[in-house]
Amino acid sequence: MNEIKYKPIGVVRSPFKEPKGTPIQPVGAKNIDGTVELFPEYAEGLKDLEGFSHIILIYHFHLSKGASLKARPYMDNEAHGIFAMRGPSRPNPIGISVVRLVGIEENILHIRDVDIVDGTPLLDIKPYVPEFDTRKVEKMGWLEKSVHKLSKTKDDGRFIR
Amino acid sequence: MNEIKYKPIGVVRSPFKEPKGTPIQPVGAKNIDGTVELFPEYAEGLKDLEGFSHIILIYHFHLSKGASLKARPYMDNEAHGIFAMRGPSRPNPIGISVVRLVGIEENILHIRDVDIVDGTPLLDIKPYVPEFDTRKVEKMGWLEKSVHKLSKTKDDGRFIR
Repeated sequence: MNEIKYKPIGVVRSPFKEPKGTPIQPVGAKNIDGTVELFPEYAEGLKDLEGFSHIILIYHFHLSKGASLKARPYMDNEAHGIFAMRGPSRPNPIGISVVRLVGIEENILHIRDVDIVDGTPLLDIKPYVPEFDTRKVEKMGWLEKSVHKLSKTKDDGRFIR
Repeated sequence: MNEIKYKPIGVVRSPFKEPKGTPIQPVGAKNIDGTVELFPEYAEGLKDLEGFSHIILIYHFHLSKGASLKARPYMDNEAHGIFAMRGPSRPNPIGISVVRLVGIEENILHIRDVDIVDGTPLLDIKPYVPEFDTRKVEKMGWLEKSVHKLSKTKDDGRFIR
């Protein structure tokens, strides 16, 4: 199969003007407020979304410097395969974050726990549903010894152009 | 911002040869085995992924008949905004599923709880990490009264071309 083409449906707004210093996951961005500016032509698609307390944002890591199949993640000193980590230098630089939905005014979504750089192009919004999205895991690889660093770790700019 | 272009990194293989009859979420696909055939040029990116019991697959709903901003989801008789549901007829037809990772042999991933149609182009693989991906929700909109239908509901073909 050939190229897949998508178009941004909106833009994420946040206090983080550059990758450096941005929290690396929503859990490290507690109470950080932001907005999604959905382009008005998609506003009809928001019907009944306000009933959900959390949403999944799928977005394009537009500042990623390009793909590396191995990289050193923020929370470890060793390199891992890019598919075993969540950093942005992926073959298809797609990011996902579960954020809190505070409210919707027309095409503007007020969101909280935002770990996304200001100006990031948005690809999709999905409702977060524990029955679909929550799993109990038996193991989580290299992160087992590192995940405690999560709330203190910020992007240090290593993956930007 | 203009078009965003991605390239499939592999293909999902499953027993489901068409959307009709396919489980609509991994929870409805318990113990269904499948594989990911990652294109060999990306195999290096799998390093250390085997340490994770669950992975997130991000894929392209290649059979979606096109975007509808409102649609009637499988588990309800009322139409909702497309961003308040998980069906495939999205402006950017991106799907996500959390599946169990059984094992990896070179560029082939053996996966379980597969709710994905055979031949689906894969865009990304991420490790599933409860600290990143699990939330307690206060509300889940129209799904509160419908989610109990999940394990019994199958795709009925309504979103295909």
